[in-house]
Amino acid sequence: MDAIFNRRSIRSYLDKKIEDDKVDKLIRAGMQAPSAMNGQPWEFLVVQEKDTLKKLGEMSMFSKMVGGAPLAIVLLGNAKKMRAKAFFPQDMGAASENILLEATYLGLGGVWLGVNSISEREKFVRDIFKLPEEIMPFGIIVIGYPGAGQENKFVDRYNPEKVHYEKY
Amino acid sequence: MDAIFNRRSIRSYLDKKIEDDKVDKLIRAGMQAPSAMNGQPWEFLVVQEKDTLKKLGEMSMFSKMVGGAPLAIVLLGNAKKMRAKAFFPQDMGAASENILLEATYLGLGGVWLGVNSISEREKFVRDIFKLPEEIMPFGIIVIGYPGAGQENKFVDRYNPEKVHYEKY
Repeated sequence: MDAIFNRRSIRSYLDKKIEDDKVDKLIRAGMQAPSAMNGQPWEFLVVQEKDTLKKLGEMSMFSKMVGGAPLAIVLLGNAKKMRAKAFFPQDMGAASENILLEATYLGLGGVWLGVNSISEREKFVRDIFKLPEEIMPFGIIVIGYPGAGQENKFVDRYNPEKVHYEKY
Repeated sequence: MDAIFNRRSIRSYLDKKIEDDKVDKLIRAGMQAPSAMNGQPWEFLVVQEKDTLKKLGEMSMFSKMVGGAPLAIVLLGNAKKMRAKAFFPQDMGAASENILLEATYLGLGGVWLGVNSISEREKFVRDIFKLPEEIMPFGIIVIGYPGAGQENKFVDRYNPEKVHYEKY
């Protein structure tokens, strides 16, 4: 499927707002992900205000691009409502990938910034949004129209040494 | 994108082998997933032998369908080669979702069985394949042509209460 094979991490963006119907599609794509016991442990925080995007960009040396993006979707989970907490990172990984693939399909580009399991980053996101204790920051998907020199295109990651048949 | 919105957990399958080129596409889709620091922490174990599929089906009360499937892809990680171990479950979640979406796109159906973080299941998979200590079982993606009464189709999971704008 083209979106899977062409998706790349896109880290610079045109100065162009993302249409509301596209933002909506991205969120809906995230919610269609599979999850353990169909627990759907996610919540989505849509950020388009420049000031907040700039603040998010200060999370680490790898997140500066957020300040120049028109959209960040902060993925969260509610610890009090989880059916299968042990599977939280896996479930959220699937939801994140859905958003990135839908973005690719819609002509957008994005990058995934990991937050969950890095305590300084969790605290950083928690502080910006004053999240209640039970709300766990998972990650940030940064999205925009790809900037100059950036595009989704196929780069082959296939490595036959990583495939085994019938036995390890 | 249709595959994202129509994907369902498919748990019964036609008695029909999956073509080699489709198996190959599924693995390639998995390897195209994003991963922290592009660490690509995955390995894939392709299982099509009936006896092994039956054994895998005994993992838990939720995994019986493996015994009736033509294909299971066991996702593994090598602890000694991980660039960003803290992100292992998230990265593998994205790879798992890629395989499930590619399966949907190819007219197949699948279901994701969680293994990582459930120690009995990890041991169960480890024992079947006599995995070296550094090889970590992550999960099992079970795949086949959808059986009678099973199909990928859109079921809306959108929940507006899970979307927040600018602040939580």
